[in-house]
Amino acid sequence: MPLEEELKQSAPRRLVATDPGFASAFARLVEESRETAAEVDQTVAEILATVRREGDVALVDYTRRLDRFPATIESLRISAAEIDEAVASIPASTREALELAAERISAFHRSQMPDDHDTRDAAGVRLGWRWRPIEAVGLYVPGGTASYPSSVLMNALPAKVAGVDRLVMVVPTPDGIVNPLVLAAARLAGVDELYRIGGAQAVAALAYGTETIRPVDKIVGPGNAYVAAAKRQVFGTVGIDTIAGPSEILVVADGQNDPAWIAADLLSQAEHDRVAQSILITDDTAFADAVVAAAADHLSRLPRRAIAAESWEHHGAIIIVPSLGDAVPLVDRIAPEHLELAVADPDSLMAHVRNAGAVFLGRHTPEAIGDYVAGPNHVLPTSRAARFASGLGVNDFVKRTTYVGCDPASLAAIGPAACVLAEAEGLGAHALSVAIRLKGKD
Amino acid sequence: MPLEEELKQSAPRRLVATDPGFASAFARLVEESRETAAEVDQTVAEILATVRREGDVALVDYTRRLDRFPATIESLRISAAEIDEAVASIPASTREALELAAERISAFHRSQMPDDHDTRDAAGVRLGWRWRPIEAVGLYVPGGTASYPSSVLMNALPAKVAGVDRLVMVVPTPDGIVNPLVLAAARLAGVDELYRIGGAQAVAALAYGTETIRPVDKIVGPGNAYVAAAKRQVFGTVGIDTIAGPSEILVVADGQNDPAWIAADLLSQAEHDRVAQSILITDDTAFADAVVAAAADHLSRLPRRAIAAESWEHHGAIIIVPSLGDAVPLVDRIAPEHLELAVADPDSLMAHVRNAGAVFLGRHTPEAIGDYVAGPNHVLPTSRAARFASGLGVNDFVKRTTYVGCDPASLAAIGPAACVLAEAEGLGAHALSVAIRLKGKD
Repeated sequence: MPLEEELKQSAPRRLVATDPGFASAFARLVEESRETAAEVDQTVAEILATVRREGDVALVDYTRRLDRFPATIESLRISAAEIDEAVASIPASTREALELAAERISAFHRSQMPDDHDTRDAAGVRLGWRWRPIEAVGLYVPGGTASYPSSVLMNALPAKVAGVDRLVMVVPTPDGIVNPLVLAAARLAGVDELYRIGGAQAVAALAYGTETIRPVDKIVGPGNAYVAAAKRQVFGTVGIDTIAGPSEILVVADGQNDPAWIAADLLSQAEHDRVAQSILITDDTAFADAVVAAAADHLSRLPRRAIAAESWEHHGAIIIVPSLGDAVPLVDRIAPEHLELAVADPDSLMAHVRNAGAVFLGRHTPEAIGDYVAGPNHVLPTSRAARFASGLGVNDFVKRTTYVGCDPASLAAIGPAACVLAEAEGLGAHALSVAIRLKGKD
Repeated sequence: MPLEEELKQSAPRRLVATDPGFASAFARLVEESRETAAEVDQTVAEILATVRREGDVALVDYTRRLDRFPATIESLRISAAEIDEAVASIPASTREALELAAERISAFHRSQMPDDHDTRDAAGVRLGWRWRPIEAVGLYVPGGTASYPSSVLMNALPAKVAGVDRLVMVVPTPDGIVNPLVLAAARLAGVDELYRIGGAQAVAALAYGTETIRPVDKIVGPGNAYVAAAKRQVFGTVGIDTIAGPSEILVVADGQNDPAWIAADLLSQAEHDRVAQSILITDDTAFADAVVAAAADHLSRLPRRAIAAESWEHHGAIIIVPSLGDAVPLVDRIAPEHLELAVADPDSLMAHVRNAGAVFLGRHTPEAIGDYVAGPNHVLPTSRAARFASGLGVNDFVKRTTYVGCDPASLAAIGPAACVLAEAEGLGAHALSVAIRLKGKD
């Protein structure tokens, strides 16, 4: 069967909430793993140890072998001239779009800066906290086809808004190929240093430092299985962000939507990855049929049709519910990365939802608007992590120091209770350190 | 040599900032690992798989074997009657101290509740975020001698302040022994369910659920190497907090302090653990000598003198600096869990410090006051993690959902830039989902 014919029949599984087998079919959908568990831990451990031991020499060696690029120690860093050249090569419309995106992302994230706090309570104890930016952050950017300028902006700008002093980007350039848009986005976002390295070796360089690359305090950004394993292994030496799984969208739509719009939204996640997941929940069976037909029609014209079709057929789903209110508990179980509420009154539906990375309100807010220019971050919790995690933000690039200040009077007020508890826990020096100050000296 | 004699000679290493070898000696101090890397990953993976497969039966089996407790499925849960009994067994003074601590910890954490945000920007795009509590949280509490009621309060109360619906505590009761103070603290903190299980099997039960224990969304709390490895392995299925290393204190003190006070503070960390670390930075050599003498004197009378002496001698340090301003870059390199600023004007020193988990201001604020009753959390980043991480707080029990809302006009304002970027990234369905709405329909 030719591809065009296949695409016309492309359809995901369908679950009907009133069917007797729904509960177990839904549980299977929620629990099915789309992660590809590559066994790379041992290889990664060896790469980390080698870079830690040999520094730049190891970086050059791995880059020559794994990225087929004739690296030298001197050329590890991407020069300002190369970045200038990349910026100059970009069409004006693209540059302007990047600038608009950068402006809007920065503005949104500026509103996220958390507040400091300083107070004196009824007992006279001074209590507070203050936030400070992390000093140095590493940003991993994948090479090749998954090298997205929008991801550079989404990871780098919150760090810069937070006040990170030194933002270091690494991006592999397999066979010497680098995406000029990525360099332009790095320039626009204020990245301070760029290196043409990737894989576990780049993560090692950021975590441990080499002669050329000073170590950082935290590493963020998406990567392949080697990068993810390397981030897990250096965690503790440096901070890391969440390990991202395949992308997901859940669209809750009534029958009043244009099925072609909703179909495009579902495919916009499906085209990311063969293991991406797109789910539609609707109360209108005829609308569901129309969406499936519209998706088949779109697919025939999409550049990434092979990927999108595979994701849509194998991991997509359509769930028919008696009424859209019945969608809410299903949404919370799925805890989607992206949730579109394509209904007339999205606020009242959102008020009942607990678990979602980001919500797109109403019929005129396609998820893709959030990928690029809306302002909120597009780095979001996947694989049901929205139950317990948030998207990337300014708070990922600052850390809080709490503080306490007592004078003799306030220590006298609360110190005796501390002594009682320390004694009860058998910690004599804890009790002593308070009691010795309560004795009246000073 | 008898122990008393040994203790009198107990002294940590001394580093002098003006010595030629200082830089490398300081680097060794900062980089020296005090973690004990137990190889438990394989064992833990087997325990997790067994509990996931066999549920309650596996929990009972492991509890009988590893905790030497005749567990049954029916007795896994600690009953309200047992907790009543524990509460009744506690002296009134201890109960009152726990109540004061709970009140102050709750009050401080209530002030941490993050704000929601809802705005419409110049382009007419609605942008915002809202925080929601995590639905179900598991709290691991170690058994035996490290079973601290203060840790129960510090982990449980921020979760309850955040609004977590279901807080589930697990605590092993090796040989059937349970600390009544821990049960009383759990009652006081509003823990909803308590189970007498521990180790990797308890982490598995919380992450995957069993017939008796419904799964949670996040697991927090300290534990041994098995618990830490289990938390790492279930990360992704559930959220976890940071893996805590050995405790640390850094005291910056001038010569105007009572050396006995400062010695008590240093030993209050040393008594936690043989691999705990206590460091004094001072500009006064004679004061440093007096602190060492006072510590030796205290040690002879402390219940946990063997542990405290070993930590103080093997991992403690005294650093002599020309002036206390010179301490600041050293503090930031060490990035201590606890920082005491025992000086006349601690604020001006704190203003220059970047990396610390919690700060204790002035001569009358021993670190132990923060362990129990001050209010800020005592779960803090260790092993230099204060460079990139914060102590536990309300934000660890809530998650943020961002949202975007466009109408036709605001989509028309920012949509074209999204299309340009999507096309530049080769993501045709992304571009389509925006373009199809810009065509004027609706």
